[in-house]
Amino acid sequence: MKKIINKPENFVDETMEGIILAYGDKVKLLNGDKRVLLTNQPVKPGKVGIVTAGGSGHLPTFLGYVGQGLIDGCAVGNVFASPSAQKMADMIKACDYGSGVLCLYGNYGGDTMNFEMACETAEFDDVTTAQIRVRDDIASSPVENADKRRGVAGLLYAYKVAGAAAEKMMSLDEVVAVTEKALANIKTMGVATTPCIVPEVGKPTFSIGEDKIEVGMGIHGEPGIEVRDMMTADEIAELVLGKITDEMPLAEGDEVSVLVNGLGGTPLEELLIVYRKVAMLLKDKGVTVVMPHIGEYATSMEMAGLSITVFKLDAELKELLLSPASTPFYTNLNK
Amino acid sequence: MKKIINKPENFVDETMEGIILAYGDKVKLLNGDKRVLLTNQPVKPGKVGIVTAGGSGHLPTFLGYVGQGLIDGCAVGNVFASPSAQKMADMIKACDYGSGVLCLYGNYGGDTMNFEMACETAEFDDVTTAQIRVRDDIASSPVENADKRRGVAGLLYAYKVAGAAAEKMMSLDEVVAVTEKALANIKTMGVATTPCIVPEVGKPTFSIGEDKIEVGMGIHGEPGIEVRDMMTADEIAELVLGKITDEMPLAEGDEVSVLVNGLGGTPLEELLIVYRKVAMLLKDKGVTVVMPHIGEYATSMEMAGLSITVFKLDAELKELLLSPASTPFYTNLNK
Repeated sequence: MKKIINKPENFVDETMEGIILAYGDKVKLLNGDKRVLLTNQPVKPGKVGIVTAGGSGHLPTFLGYVGQGLIDGCAVGNVFASPSAQKMADMIKACDYGSGVLCLYGNYGGDTMNFEMACETAEFDDVTTAQIRVRDDIASSPVENADKRRGVAGLLYAYKVAGAAAEKMMSLDEVVAVTEKALANIKTMGVATTPCIVPEVGKPTFSIGEDKIEVGMGIHGEPGIEVRDMMTADEIAELVLGKITDEMPLAEGDEVSVLVNGLGGTPLEELLIVYRKVAMLLKDKGVTVVMPHIGEYATSMEMAGLSITVFKLDAELKELLLSPASTPFYTNLNK
Repeated sequence: MKKIINKPENFVDETMEGIILAYGDKVKLLNGDKRVLLTNQPVKPGKVGIVTAGGSGHLPTFLGYVGQGLIDGCAVGNVFASPSAQKMADMIKACDYGSGVLCLYGNYGGDTMNFEMACETAEFDDVTTAQIRVRDDIASSPVENADKRRGVAGLLYAYKVAGAAAEKMMSLDEVVAVTEKALANIKTMGVATTPCIVPEVGKPTFSIGEDKIEVGMGIHGEPGIEVRDMMTADEIAELVLGKITDEMPLAEGDEVSVLVNGLGGTPLEELLIVYRKVAMLLKDKGVTVVMPHIGEYATSMEMAGLSITVFKLDAELKELLLSPASTPFYTNLNK
């Protein structure tokens, strides 16, 4: 196994220790718990708390977004596994600044079950909670079963909108409403060319054929829509953008933000080459791109591949997107 | 070949087109030339210009650092190949704001030869130039032949210091002096676990044995000091930090910045696990870390592995390091 780690069973704890050693001025553990990270920056009294949770192995998702203007707390489990309901409940209580807490997370079975229990526990302690499950991956289930779709890189845009809305001192109901409006306009699809290695397994848990590409693969290696012969960057851009705009038509004059997200093993050059084609296709339609994001935002450790997310904007969503944010792995200042 | 590209021969041009489509408000081409990128942000009149050049395939090095507080211009060649002297000369002239231009680049044969010619050409047109070759890779040549050493991830710190000094309106001589002082205190060493693929070749141009690690490998796959059995993260941190501090001793009370740089295919979790050990070893010595950098700053496309850079600070260097900078792939604001 070619992973640069120590004991596989210490992978998550040591990652968290690294984060605290590096960024302890910006983030902190909840009572020393190496599975719950909280912001260590000043929080406006009475602000709605925004929290998330999920399995490890996706950095900068989720831990990297704890900070100002995005999320206030994050609970993590083992690699690709949900944290416990108890840790989520502790986090929710710690992130209640008096106006309730929005739990904003990817639509996966374990996370959903545990957040349901955690919210019950928190409500019992008089913390008002709301939940939004992100389901941006259009390849993970057909549109008629859109409630079964998984959450992937679009989570970042959801955090951005909810975090900015909370910073503007919107109420919990208002934060929920604007985040749901955003999510109705956020669609993602990905492709993968190599698998990844879960540290405690030590070898790839799935395979992708030589010269093949998995269209629609999930960030844990969930099978996609189809396996194809390797495609060019332009073909990938056309295919994915086509699938997205089939569901979410774009017209001349529309404004969108585009996220070309590397899954871990794909060079930045290749992400830029894919972005190039996406931008050209959008330009041809008369669609303007606002604040593109190109880089690694939601990874699957060393998996090669990428996803494309399109976020269709209105004036309110655009303002929230452009609002400042500052966390150890996301800075959007002075733009 | 599992690269997400179009025609291999268009790799560099299309990468540059992607950059311009995404960040055209911040950077621009020189007269439409897809091999020379200039800042598109306001430049203080009379500021010293800072330029660099090198082969493609290392993003965010070099193109990603064109912007405010770092470098003003960058010429790139094909993958792992120097751009021409003519393009460098055009760039130098475009980045002369009246007080001369510092050419700050990695110590490689082609880049050196071409910058020598380019500076002659620019001087002929009455542009004052200075050159500094970065040689931070301590594994690339023994200390008695330190002038033969290559430039790797420490380039970022060199850009940061020179860029901040120029923003403070220091003269060309002063920028050169403080950058040389910084470079005497910047040491890097890397390890690699998998090779990378040059697009026009289509397969790895070198190999690293199964369960082996190359200690001291360069960012183009140059052989390192030795091939070892795969090491743990802690062993890598101890080995590399030990080699660096053998040359540059650190004592209680010293302040350093540390850059743990991913070469392209190594997950952020693993970089944090290595940083954890580096930080613990430095803490044991009573050394304080200022503004650590953990992520992909100087890559070799999809190569797996990492490098560790230590930058020993004094009051002046610390202030320059902490000064604001903003480019498409580097933001250091409000810290």
